[in-house]
Amino acid sequence: MGGNATALLRSYVSGGWHTPSGDGAPLHDAVTGEVVARVSSEGIDKAAALEHGRTVGGPALRELTFHQRAALLKALGGHLREHRDELYALSARTGATLGDSKFDVDGGIGVLLTYASKGRRELPNDTVYVDGPVEPLGRGGTFVGRHIATPLRGVAVQINAFNFPVWGPLEKFAPAFLAGVPSLVKPASQTAYLTEKLVELMLGSGLLPEGTLQLLCGGAGDLLDHVGGQDLVSFTGSASTAQRLRAHPAIVRNSVRFNAEADSLNCSILGPDATPGTAEFDLYVKQLVTEMTVKAGQKCTAIRRAFVPAELLDDVTEAVSARLAKTTVGNPASEGVRMGALASLEQREEVRRSLKALNEAGRIVFGDPERVDVVDADAERGAFLSPILLRADDPDRAEPHEVEAFGPVSTLLPYTSAEQVVALAARGQGSLAGSVVTGDPEFAREVVLGAAPWHGRLLVLDADNAKESTGHGSPLPALVHGGPGRAGGGEELGGIRSVLHHLQRTAVQASPTVLSAVTGQFVPGAPRREGTHPFRKPLAELRVGDTVVAGPRTVTPEDIAHFAEFTGDTFYAHTDEQAAAANPLFGGIVAHGYLVVSFAAGLFVSPEPGPVLANYGLENLRFLTPVKPGDALSVTLTCKQITPRENADYGEVRWDTDVTNADGDSVARYDVLTLVSKEAK
Amino acid sequence: MGGNATALLRSYVSGGWHTPSGDGAPLHDAVTGEVVARVSSEGIDKAAALEHGRTVGGPALRELTFHQRAALLKALGGHLREHRDELYALSARTGATLGDSKFDVDGGIGVLLTYASKGRRELPNDTVYVDGPVEPLGRGGTFVGRHIATPLRGVAVQINAFNFPVWGPLEKFAPAFLAGVPSLVKPASQTAYLTEKLVELMLGSGLLPEGTLQLLCGGAGDLLDHVGGQDLVSFTGSASTAQRLRAHPAIVRNSVRFNAEADSLNCSILGPDATPGTAEFDLYVKQLVTEMTVKAGQKCTAIRRAFVPAELLDDVTEAVSARLAKTTVGNPASEGVRMGALASLEQREEVRRSLKALNEAGRIVFGDPERVDVVDADAERGAFLSPILLRADDPDRAEPHEVEAFGPVSTLLPYTSAEQVVALAARGQGSLAGSVVTGDPEFAREVVLGAAPWHGRLLVLDADNAKESTGHGSPLPALVHGGPGRAGGGEELGGIRSVLHHLQRTAVQASPTVLSAVTGQFVPGAPRREGTHPFRKPLAELRVGDTVVAGPRTVTPEDIAHFAEFTGDTFYAHTDEQAAAANPLFGGIVAHGYLVVSFAAGLFVSPEPGPVLANYGLENLRFLTPVKPGDALSVTLTCKQITPRENADYGEVRWDTDVTNADGDSVARYDVLTLVSKEAK
Repeated sequence: MGGNATALLRSYVSGGWHTPSGDGAPLHDAVTGEVVARVSSEGIDKAAALEHGRTVGGPALRELTFHQRAALLKALGGHLREHRDELYALSARTGATLGDSKFDVDGGIGVLLTYASKGRRELPNDTVYVDGPVEPLGRGGTFVGRHIATPLRGVAVQINAFNFPVWGPLEKFAPAFLAGVPSLVKPASQTAYLTEKLVELMLGSGLLPEGTLQLLCGGAGDLLDHVGGQDLVSFTGSASTAQRLRAHPAIVRNSVRFNAEADSLNCSILGPDATPGTAEFDLYVKQLVTEMTVKAGQKCTAIRRAFVPAELLDDVTEAVSARLAKTTVGNPASEGVRMGALASLEQREEVRRSLKALNEAGRIVFGDPERVDVVDADAERGAFLSPILLRADDPDRAEPHEVEAFGPVSTLLPYTSAEQVVALAARGQGSLAGSVVTGDPEFAREVVLGAAPWHGRLLVLDADNAKESTGHGSPLPALVHGGPGRAGGGEELGGIRSVLHHLQRTAVQASPTVLSAVTGQFVPGAPRREGTHPFRKPLAELRVGDTVVAGPRTVTPEDIAHFAEFTGDTFYAHTDEQAAAANPLFGGIVAHGYLVVSFAAGLFVSPEPGPVLANYGLENLRFLTPVKPGDALSVTLTCKQITPRENADYGEVRWDTDVTNADGDSVARYDVLTLVSKEAK
Repeated sequence: MGGNATALLRSYVSGGWHTPSGDGAPLHDAVTGEVVARVSSEGIDKAAALEHGRTVGGPALRELTFHQRAALLKALGGHLREHRDELYALSARTGATLGDSKFDVDGGIGVLLTYASKGRRELPNDTVYVDGPVEPLGRGGTFVGRHIATPLRGVAVQINAFNFPVWGPLEKFAPAFLAGVPSLVKPASQTAYLTEKLVELMLGSGLLPEGTLQLLCGGAGDLLDHVGGQDLVSFTGSASTAQRLRAHPAIVRNSVRFNAEADSLNCSILGPDATPGTAEFDLYVKQLVTEMTVKAGQKCTAIRRAFVPAELLDDVTEAVSARLAKTTVGNPASEGVRMGALASLEQREEVRRSLKALNEAGRIVFGDPERVDVVDADAERGAFLSPILLRADDPDRAEPHEVEAFGPVSTLLPYTSAEQVVALAARGQGSLAGSVVTGDPEFAREVVLGAAPWHGRLLVLDADNAKESTGHGSPLPALVHGGPGRAGGGEELGGIRSVLHHLQRTAVQASPTVLSAVTGQFVPGAPRREGTHPFRKPLAELRVGDTVVAGPRTVTPEDIAHFAEFTGDTFYAHTDEQAAAANPLFGGIVAHGYLVVSFAAGLFVSPEPGPVLANYGLENLRFLTPVKPGDALSVTLTCKQITPRENADYGEVRWDTDVTNADGDSVARYDVLTLVSKEAK
């Protein structure tokens, strides 16, 4: 945008910043009504942008491993954090208070950092993701299956809503980038000037390979006509637009992955135990007011339906009204202002229209849709609106469950039983988020399990978690965001789940040898290579399949008796011949499982200092055959997976471990987890 | 159907068998042309059927646990196996050979049994599925999150294709039933008489609660107008119908989960190493002929594009033609017949039309679309067609990649490099299945990783797995079935993945206490109840949260030295002070992890015979803090999850195990897995 406040917003496509042709439409400061910028996408070649992402951005991203992409996300988060004041400043022009801006900006940076961290911890340092276990497909072990997930070769088209111009693009970009899929961000025009600034900062970091992030300001034009079966479209916004996009001919024709997150009629339920004077009563009231006023209620997760035990309806009405009365509305730049403006005058008109419908079913018990006292601003030129609380004494009326006023508006509704409130919650026909405020875990369980099929996220708020709770309205990167039915039927965030959304899952059927070659992980049945003890090899030399076979060592009766006495594990199956004989699984004395794995370690160990630094864990240990006194144990340890760390001189190595008896039966199988140096010292 | 071969097919809806009004349309025997039955859905109340499923079938299913539903699937599989001859007999009238019928019928029964087995092994014996780990949401540990999955409260509408009238309905029914969602099966009319028989047998088993399986024969009518946000629609069939359904207003409006599996232009790739005389060359030829002729090529997974190294094109043309020449076509009831009829005369006309288009790009090198010698049948009254092999010397022509002839038809195409064949494979725009036949794991890796984004399943066939391989065209219940783009973008089967498709995933945020109550699994931070040692409690008394705290026990230098000597695990970090001091992670002698867990077992053990039968494994063991000589260890063991078995007098119990030092730091965390009796002896 530069210094000219009425400049046309640029788009960053096909490797450069482009100014659209024509004059564009004006975008107004939500507080002052001044023109902030003008927006248009005229003359921007959308098809070329998609092709640029596919041919330049995708290949560049796919050259990086998941861990390398995660490291870039982390650095990007740090870069944006240094520049967040620039974002806050522009954010104020959208009507946001500083608190609102932090919710948007810091929240978005938090998503980048969470994905950076999860990418490193939960994904391999590789370009292929292996999904689920090896599936045996034949008795002989020569034919096995496993799923891999590889990046779609298209572009993730991300169509965002006006209310989160920073968080919205970042929460879609982070999982796509981590997955290896380039993004094309299309912000809602109303607040696109802030997203333009965000993208400018992101590109300015120099961290992102060309083509992995593009920006299209203004209308989508013919963009969607050009999406194909390897592209994805993610949309956040109104349910009606979601429907239109979902039925777009190119999306339908090419089975394009379409993810919608639409605002919904979310509910918050007060438990019958939470009477006035309890911590939960106060938490409910406070949370409801927060959800009504943060971002002036322009959150797709905000509480629209507040369900309250019928006998508490008066108390809640009073307490919420009293708290709302203290909410100062006005210029977000001014001291003491708690609620800013809606994003635009059009938005305010839209809310007033919805309020008329809601007013059919309930009466307004706080606020006046046509009047509000504002601090340091003009209540008519700025898009200001009073918080409005309605109360509908008949919870069966249709309007509160169907009409959404996308602003500082909620309706109180009475209920009389857990069963009824679950049924009422379901009348929203699918919600992004719901909350239950109760100190009664049984009530919480009944409501959560009952309402879950209609919800993407449910919060149970109580005195125990109130201090740490992030609240009803906050999607978190580790948890799914999205809901069924009216909420769009999508899933965003949820940790690695949304990375997988950008990958194609493919079942691979092959011999163990080939499956190992394809996945880069050892599959039992594939060739094992013996030679130098693999614990003597640093990562630079170690290869999947490297093996040591050791043993046999005979487990004597004395070993078992001694181990029992030494460790104190005198369980009868190890110590009492007669009692052990009566055990239906053993039929006699057996060695401790812990003895078996300890002896195995004694067999496969390579004692001298070397590249193996530590054994940091075991996974999937199963004792498969009882070990009897006199059994001779051997162990086969094979390098299964190698995960070098990007920022350390060592990495993780997982070892397939198979302890067998003299008959060749496996007595224990597990993965040994070690840290191993990259280079020999 | 009873004995009257021209009877109207009935539908089973709303609790009873209903005969449609009107005369219906005739369905013809594929071999003889006789009328087998008539079909119509006139007068069947589709909206009522959906509501019956939702209000009667759903609640009945949701009362059962996953394990109970799995047990019913197992019994159902056994019941159908006893009656499979009845299904084979009718199947012959669809043009199927006995081999084809077994593929359909036994394959379908196999799906039931696989889901029964996976349900018991991979799902909890509970009504809620817990998805993924506990996610910490705050530093203090009072606020945590986890995902649960609960059955959608609607009906799974399953619209099947004509080519698998038994397997098709069963592969959709099994995961829905296991998930707790009732099915409404709508078969393709052409072969609906066989599905009607199947449903009659299934209902006749008496195993299925009323409303959990309904059948709608004939047209769908207004069925889809009534689907809502809690219903699902799964479709198998043509890409064009898939598009029409995906854009259906009710599906779009309600974000109905829509899963499509459409026939696609699947490919099979011969490796350059597989020259004539190699095992892989012969496997390729044999598999191609099999895929062309099984079910007369009417499989959505069949090979349409056969990619062959250019220099081998003549050899393959010759070998495939020679083998096809031996394929006897005719009445499937007759001895020696290898390929039966297409499902109908209309289907044959459709294939002939597609062949005309394919003929633009390639020449026919085997077979005549207008002529075929048949055994024991009338080649014109029955829907017989010769296998047709085409050869297109220019692989860049559009037709072979776009036009599907849904019959015994494949096109040979040359390629010259791995890169090129990956690009050619992608020109199918998304396929259900592909195969690579090669003895070269590196070629396999390159092609699989390159082609994966366009495929739901890829088979690498070689001499190693040929005996056990189930072949290119066979979807397996443990592996995903479905593909991106043209193949419909869906996922069926894939083990528990397709059960999850019927469940709503919901993020639950709560205190550990409430999260434990909601999920039925112990969450660290929730109250632990001490008292009677929990190892003394059978399942009838044991509760999640029951805890034993034991210790402390000091680990002495002598313990470490002795353990090293006794087990043989003389790793320097346990035995050599100077070398251990140089280890970057330890800085001095540390106790063996195996010693720590062995001592912990000695602390929490309850030695006398009792309900705990065995420790069968450990999971997720992590050593978190090094244990130094002199450290005092305590252990806290808490009942985390209880899984009683349906068919045994014991079950699995998982114990949260936390070994701490004197500072209270966790030194090791893991889950101990035990078998515990249901009742005290």
